Amino acid sequence: MPDQGRASVRSRGAFISGPVLTRDVALLTDLYELTMAASYFREAMAAAATFSLFVRKLPPTRGFLIAAGLEDALLLLESFEFSSDAIAYLASLERFEPAFLDFLRSFRFTGEVRAVPEGTAIFPDEPLLEVTAPIVEAQLVETAVINLIHLQTVQASKAVRTVLAARGRAVVDFGLRRTHGIHAGMSAARSAFIAGAEMTSNVLAGLTYGISPAGTMAHSYVSAFPREIDSFRAFARTFPRNTTLLLDTYDTVAAAHKAVVVGREMERRGERLSGVRLDSGDMAKLATEVRRILDSAGLGYVQIFASGGLDEEEVDRLLTAGAPIDAFGVGTRMNVSADAPYLDMAYKIVRYAGRDILKLSEGKTTWTGEKQVYRARGSDGRLASDVLALRDEPPPLNGEPLLQTVMKSGQIVEPYPTLAAIRSRCAEEVAVLPDDVRALRHPAPYRVRYSDSLIARQRALEAATRATETVASH
Amino acid sequence: MPDQGRASVRSRGAFISGPVLTRDVALLTDLYELTMAASYFREAMAAAATFSLFVRKLPPTRGFLIAAGLEDALLLLESFEFSSDAIAYLASLERFEPAFLDFLRSFRFTGEVRAVPEGTAIFPDEPLLEVTAPIVEAQLVETAVINLIHLQTVQASKAVRTVLAARGRAVVDFGLRRTHGIHAGMSAARSAFIAGAEMTSNVLAGLTYGISPAGTMAHSYVSAFPREIDSFRAFARTFPRNTTLLLDTYDTVAAAHKAVVVGREMERRGERLSGVRLDSGDMAKLATEVRRILDSAGLGYVQIFASGGLDEEEVDRLLTAGAPIDAFGVGTRMNVSADAPYLDMAYKIVRYAGRDILKLSEGKTTWTGEKQVYRARGSDGRLASDVLALRDEPPPLNGEPLLQTVMKSGQIVEPYPTLAAIRSRCAEEVAVLPDDVRALRHPAPYRVRYSDSLIARQRALEAATRATETVASH
Repeated sequence: MPDQGRASVRSRGAFISGPVLTRDVALLTDLYELTMAASYFREAMAAAATFSLFVRKLPPTRGFLIAAGLEDALLLLESFEFSSDAIAYLASLERFEPAFLDFLRSFRFTGEVRAVPEGTAIFPDEPLLEVTAPIVEAQLVETAVINLIHLQTVQASKAVRTVLAARGRAVVDFGLRRTHGIHAGMSAARSAFIAGAEMTSNVLAGLTYGISPAGTMAHSYVSAFPREIDSFRAFARTFPRNTTLLLDTYDTVAAAHKAVVVGREMERRGERLSGVRLDSGDMAKLATEVRRILDSAGLGYVQIFASGGLDEEEVDRLLTAGAPIDAFGVGTRMNVSADAPYLDMAYKIVRYAGRDILKLSEGKTTWTGEKQVYRARGSDGRLASDVLALRDEPPPLNGEPLLQTVMKSGQIVEPYPTLAAIRSRCAEEVAVLPDDVRALRHPAPYRVRYSDSLIARQRALEAATRATETVASH
Repeated sequence: MPDQGRASVRSRGAFISGPVLTRDVALLTDLYELTMAASYFREAMAAAATFSLFVRKLPPTRGFLIAAGLEDALLLLESFEFSSDAIAYLASLERFEPAFLDFLRSFRFTGEVRAVPEGTAIFPDEPLLEVTAPIVEAQLVETAVINLIHLQTVQASKAVRTVLAARGRAVVDFGLRRTHGIHAGMSAARSAFIAGAEMTSNVLAGLTYGISPAGTMAHSYVSAFPREIDSFRAFARTFPRNTTLLLDTYDTVAAAHKAVVVGREMERRGERLSGVRLDSGDMAKLATEVRRILDSAGLGYVQIFASGGLDEEEVDRLLTAGAPIDAFGVGTRMNVSADAPYLDMAYKIVRYAGRDILKLSEGKTTWTGEKQVYRARGSDGRLASDVLALRDEPPPLNGEPLLQTVMKSGQIVEPYPTLAAIRSRCAEEVAVLPDDVRALRHPAPYRVRYSDSLIARQRALEAATRATETVASH
């Protein structure tokens, strides 16, 4: 039943990202994309432009990011079109000429996309993707492309920290209830899985992505019964092979003793209690006490599961304190990336009609030109440094090029990697990061060098642009 | 064309929230809702339960929250059902008995919902809504109900701060590109509009909610032309009635002089330049300089629009510094609620089969029983204090009850307020908040009293529960 494949729909004006379908996807844009497009159309500006998607700088707690969300962005490009409802709405705004609206009626994205594979570690200024297409096309898809890749990159880059903090113990995505909406809840499950989470509480993510769903009982269940132990017994009756008892509804230690009673009852029926869950209180102390109670009752096989407001900091603290916890349910703070809920991610034009382009906005200067990133490794196999270079300059002596062509003439280059393959890539990338770059706290910056050709072209263009544009003459 | 009405679909297993359609909505849940439901089903526990949705405590920067998201939650309850795909997936997990799966096939939500109207200011422990339904129904909708109301309440509560900081100047939602996904982008536009924003850049929100869309040009547009002034002239040709020129692509002051040239050219054609936009640099200083340049050229009617990484703190700082800014485009930090991206919002059982219920989890004790909130005003019309009371106790002498019945037997009580009405309610609520509660920084706590009956019932139940459940005997 789980389907590792893609859920893609190309029906007119609709886009499916996993189970979230958006009608009139082409209107899922900032208005200015359309006003600019109308002006390009009127001025007959139809040459190819290249836009580059990158992150200007990292949040202080991030030494690296994990690229994610590309698949959704490519599916969107394949299904990007204007429905008749969309055209009628735009006409109602009384801003757009009929000829432009006619042009939109048959609009399709026909361009090329080069991108870093999902699951790859990336650093500031490195393009996650570059779109090359007639300028109207490359412009109109901006908002949606940023939205889809920003979201999953934020989520995967946070989730991988939790996985690192858990040091091999299982991490389960528990966050659906407080993600920013349904779409974010689905992408959170996908992103956490890419980052190394084992399971998700999100059942629809189980159906959509083939991730194993996890979960047993809440406090409401325990308290709906006259006595706590009645609830434990009832659950064990219903799920003799999958019972994890929630211990903290009233008193965790008292509940652990009840779990022993129920665990022994299960043994007498030839069953085994799977686990117990702690969800509040001094988790390190309680886990130690509960482990002792279970072990001294001969229930050493019962796993201890911790949840409740956890994040990578707390997971790390608990394991450093020696808490005997076997698995972590991590939710809200991971899925909303509470310490860094957004990235300074931008989609900027770098070339138009064969001419390199930059902007000089204070604090937001962009690097011109189409680019490639070359990643070099040390003799130990660890990542050593990257070179950010122009696409058309000779590659350095060593270094793997990261950007690959993933869409040609508006069609995805098949086969797209499976989610399992993306997850493996992420694990391999994280394994070979320098330790100080991978650190949870005060990460060191990774070494990214700018090629001599890039610097020379940038400096020359900056000087030329300043000479013509920073004076008031015309 | 803009439709102020609701976009609701009740096709089998699908749910539309605005333009975001989710298939298999009933699976958009944490697995434990289904395992608990299976156990309730097996134990024949079918009595009515009441669950209460509330926020335990406010983020430090919030003195109040604006309730939002109820309409989507109610639409979800009306369309909550299991598709045949959903049932087949659940069967594939090999955890659920055929009789339970048969029960799910015909499952519908048939319960009652009482709720605080959208746009209302709310405070900690006050229920945003209470669901009363057979326990399986009230349990199964938990995850989705929290998700939808949490999201919009987070967003509206942040956006209202920006509107307050702008002191009557227009706020425009600019955040779609970095919201957490498509759904969050749509709800951000709706929530910001409720909170008092005038317009949105999100075109699909224009179509869906009837909010006026806003936007003109980006840096990419300017730099796609050989010279900046060429881009200004081209845009003015395309949109003679709606041209706002972006000034900071190369040099803001130099560009302001070019805007004067283009503005005068427009005047000679009988047109008027609408505005200029500043997007980087020292905004207070640049706004003052640009205003001077425009005014001394006789272009006093040209508005100055500010954008670029703004939030309520920065808007407040700019206006306090006297920056002559007429409107603010506010995006990422408002829409992801960067300083408080989640709320400690919970959906807890408070009554089952005629029995009051609480939990005693450390730091997370819940208040028992079905409740009502009474809101009293002072002689000046300002809000004075609230009373959190039991639903079945006599109301206090004065105080307006906030929770109203919004769903009966699984159907929305019509008419549901229009978005315009919700926006008005929010404006009225915010206007009568005590000044110190409404403060952007270090807000004072609002006075919420717990009724004597509630306290008495809580203490008695706590004592009884502790007596039976915090000892290891059974």
